[in-house]
Amino acid sequence: MIFTDIIEKKKKGSALSHAEIEFFISGMMSGEIPDYQISALLMAIVLKGMTDEETFYLTDAMLHSGEMLEKGEICGTCVDKHSTGGVSDSTTLIVVPVVCALGLKFAKLSGRGLGHTGGTIDKLESFNGFNVNLTRDEFTRLVNSVGGAISGQTAETAPADKKLYALRDVTATVDSIPLIASSIMSKKLASFADVIVLDVKYGSGAFMKTAEEAERLASLMVKIGKNAGRRVSALITSMNQPLGDSVGCNAEVRGAIGVLRGKENDLKRVSCVLARELLVLSGWDEMEAEKAVCHAIESGDAIAKLKEIIVAQGGDPSCADDPSLLSMGRYSAPIICEKGGYLALVDAEAIGNANVVLGGGRLKKTDEIDHQSGIIVRARIGDKLSRGDVLATAYTNNEGSLAAAVERLSGAFTVCGEKPKGEALIHNLIR
Amino acid sequence: MIFTDIIEKKKKGSALSHAEIEFFISGMMSGEIPDYQISALLMAIVLKGMTDEETFYLTDAMLHSGEMLEKGEICGTCVDKHSTGGVSDSTTLIVVPVVCALGLKFAKLSGRGLGHTGGTIDKLESFNGFNVNLTRDEFTRLVNSVGGAISGQTAETAPADKKLYALRDVTATVDSIPLIASSIMSKKLASFADVIVLDVKYGSGAFMKTAEEAERLASLMVKIGKNAGRRVSALITSMNQPLGDSVGCNAEVRGAIGVLRGKENDLKRVSCVLARELLVLSGWDEMEAEKAVCHAIESGDAIAKLKEIIVAQGGDPSCADDPSLLSMGRYSAPIICEKGGYLALVDAEAIGNANVVLGGGRLKKTDEIDHQSGIIVRARIGDKLSRGDVLATAYTNNEGSLAAAVERLSGAFTVCGEKPKGEALIHNLIR
Repeated sequence: MIFTDIIEKKKKGSALSHAEIEFFISGMMSGEIPDYQISALLMAIVLKGMTDEETFYLTDAMLHSGEMLEKGEICGTCVDKHSTGGVSDSTTLIVVPVVCALGLKFAKLSGRGLGHTGGTIDKLESFNGFNVNLTRDEFTRLVNSVGGAISGQTAETAPADKKLYALRDVTATVDSIPLIASSIMSKKLASFADVIVLDVKYGSGAFMKTAEEAERLASLMVKIGKNAGRRVSALITSMNQPLGDSVGCNAEVRGAIGVLRGKENDLKRVSCVLARELLVLSGWDEMEAEKAVCHAIESGDAIAKLKEIIVAQGGDPSCADDPSLLSMGRYSAPIICEKGGYLALVDAEAIGNANVVLGGGRLKKTDEIDHQSGIIVRARIGDKLSRGDVLATAYTNNEGSLAAAVERLSGAFTVCGEKPKGEALIHNLIR
Repeated sequence: MIFTDIIEKKKKGSALSHAEIEFFISGMMSGEIPDYQISALLMAIVLKGMTDEETFYLTDAMLHSGEMLEKGEICGTCVDKHSTGGVSDSTTLIVVPVVCALGLKFAKLSGRGLGHTGGTIDKLESFNGFNVNLTRDEFTRLVNSVGGAISGQTAETAPADKKLYALRDVTATVDSIPLIASSIMSKKLASFADVIVLDVKYGSGAFMKTAEEAERLASLMVKIGKNAGRRVSALITSMNQPLGDSVGCNAEVRGAIGVLRGKENDLKRVSCVLARELLVLSGWDEMEAEKAVCHAIESGDAIAKLKEIIVAQGGDPSCADDPSLLSMGRYSAPIICEKGGYLALVDAEAIGNANVVLGGGRLKKTDEIDHQSGIIVRARIGDKLSRGDVLATAYTNNEGSLAAAVERLSGAFTVCGEKPKGEALIHNLIR
C-alpha cells in the first residue's frame, strides 16, 4: 500500500477500507508515515467526511494501538460515562457515588481541565491526599471492592489518538465529527465498560455550538459503541450557561457535595438523568431507576459512597461533611448587574476563560492550577434582575488577576427587557 | 499572524490576503512553518480552491523567493515559451531558432524530462558538447549576441516553488489548477521575458486530461502573466497522440531538424503557431508573422540559427546537416498492427512510459537516460491500417527491456472498424 494513494482516495471523497485505515494508524505509530502526509489526509477527512464504517475502523485501530482493559477483570456490569466538556460540569462527582450506591461497578477514567472546560481529575485533587494515579491493578481492585474508582488515563490508553490529536491541534483539523467521535470512543472503549452513557453538550460553553451538531456527534458515538458490542446512549444537554452555580475546583466540589446533600438545581437534574440512564442500560426498569436514584441521594447512601471512594483512594473525606473546608481564594470581587431586566444570555465559555484568568484553569497542559480560585454564579437565564444585583463573585489568590476576570465576567451576562424563551436543559436522548 | 488561523480560513473556503500568503511563503522558506502545517493548507487549497487574486499573490511570493533576472539586461523584446509537457513535444528546438532568425531575443530556461514526458535540456545534450548549464552572465551575453540561448534552470529560480512542489508530490496535492498555474508562472516570470506564449496540452499524454481543464489552467496562467505586466497568451493543443513521430532524445532531435528542413507534420503546425504568436505579441501583424515564420524555415535561416546557437553553447552542429549522426539504439523491435481498420485512439502516456522502460526516459530525477533509446511512431489517428502494418518501432541499447516496452506499446494503439471523428490539433488560443 502507498500512503499517497490513500490520501488521493480520501481527497476524491471515497471511503477508505479497513485495511487502508489499519495501514494509516500502524504506519503513524511506527513512524513510517511522516506527519506531513498524515496532516494532508486529516484535512481531506475534515473536508470530505468519513462514512460510519470508516469511523468504526478508525476507532478500532486507535483503540488497539494501546493497552485495553479486559472485561473479565470486573465482576458484574461495569459502567462508564463521558461528558464532551463544559463549564461547571461536575456530574461525575455525583453520578459515580449514586450509581455505585445502587450496586453497579463504575470504572471511570477521567482527564484534566484545559481552556474554558474543567476536568474531574483536577477536582478530585481538592480532596487532600486523593490519589488520581492508580495503577491498573489498584484501579481494578477498587472497582471490584468499593464499587467505583476514578483515575487519570495512562499514556497506554489509545496512544494513536494522542498522537493524532496533537497533530490535529496544530493543523486546524480538530472540527470533524468523525474525528472527534473516534477520538472519544477509542478512549472509552479501552476501558471494560459494558454500559456507556455520553453527555454531549451544546451551546455557549461547549465545543458544539448547536444542538444539531451535538446530535450528529452523539448519534455517531452511539453507533460506534454499539458496533463495538457495548450498550451506549447519549444525552444532548444545554451548555448555554454553566451547569452548576460554581466554577473552579473547590467551588465545583462544593457544588457537587451540595447536590448529594439535597440541593435542587440543573446540575442535579442532568446528573440524575445520567445515573438513571446508566441503570436502565444495565437492565433496570426506567421508573424504578428514577426512584432509586432519588432515594440514593435522599437516604445519604450516595454521599456515604463518595466518602468511601475518597478514603479508598487515600483522600480526606471530611469536606464531604463540612463543605466550608473547601475554602475559596483570599481576594474576591462581585460582578454587578448594570441594568434591570431578565437574564437572557450567558457566555459560558467566557466564564470558563475568566476562571483561567483567575488561576483556576489552565491554558496549556503544563500549567498549574489554584484549587481555591473560581467563580460563584448567582443568576440563571430567565431570572428577573434589578440594577445592582450580584450576578457572580470571582475568587482568587492572585489579586492582580481580578480586574481582567471581572471585565470578562461582566461581558458574559446579557440582560434584556423581555423574559427569554425557556430552553430545555435536556434536549434529547439517543439510544 | 498564527499559521493555524490561515489554515482554518482556507478550510472554511475564504480567500487569504496578500499578507497571509506572504507570511506562508516566507515562513516556509525560513523553516518556521513545519511541513505538516503546510501540507494541511495545501489539501485545503486543493479542495477549496483559490481566487485569482490569491493565485497572483502566491505566484508573486514564490517568484520573489529567489533570483530574478532584470529586464534591462536584454536589448529589445525578449520572449519565452512554455509547454505543460507531453510526448514527442520538441517545439522548443524549432520555435527558438525560427523566432531568433526573425530578430527577437529568446531567453529560454528549460527542464529535464520526468516520467512519460521529455525535457528540452536532455534533448540538447544530443548535440555533443552542448553546455546546458550556462551561468547567468553567459546566458545573458548569448541572448544578446546570438539572439537566443537555452539553459537549465538554476536552484536560485523560485526556490519556494521547488520546496512546495516537493511537498505536493508526496501529499497527493499536485492536482490543483491554482497551484499548478502559480508553480509554472513563478518560474516563467523569474526570467526577463516581455512576451510569454504557453502551450497547454490536454489528452492521453498530458497532465490535463480534458480540453476544459487545460483551458481553465491556461486562462489562469494568462491572467497571472498579465497581472505581472507581461504580454501572455496560451494555445490549448491536443496531446491525444505523440505530437511528432519520434520519442526519445536523439529521435526527437532528428524530428525537430526534419521540420526545420521542411518536413510537414503536427509538430511543425504547433511550432509555427507558437512562433507566430510570439511575433504577434511582440508587435507583428498576424499575417506578416505567419508568412515570416514559413519563410524562416523555407529559406534555411532557422536551421542556420539553430547551428549558431549550438556552436555558441559549445555543441557540435554537424547532425543538423546530417541527422543520421543522431544514431538509435542497437536493438529494435516493431509493433505490429494485429487487425485492419482505422487507428482510433493512442495512449500517448503509455508511449512515453515505454520510452522510460527502454532507457530513454527517467522515473526519478536522478536516473540517467540513454539518448539512443526511443520510439519511432509510424501511424497517426485516422490512418487506415492493415493487419501486419508497423505501428511503431522501439529502439534501445538494453535488449532486455524490449519485450516489456513492446507490450506497453502494443496496448497503446486502438484500432476500430470506423474512421474516428477528427479532432482539432489546436483547440483554442487564449490571449
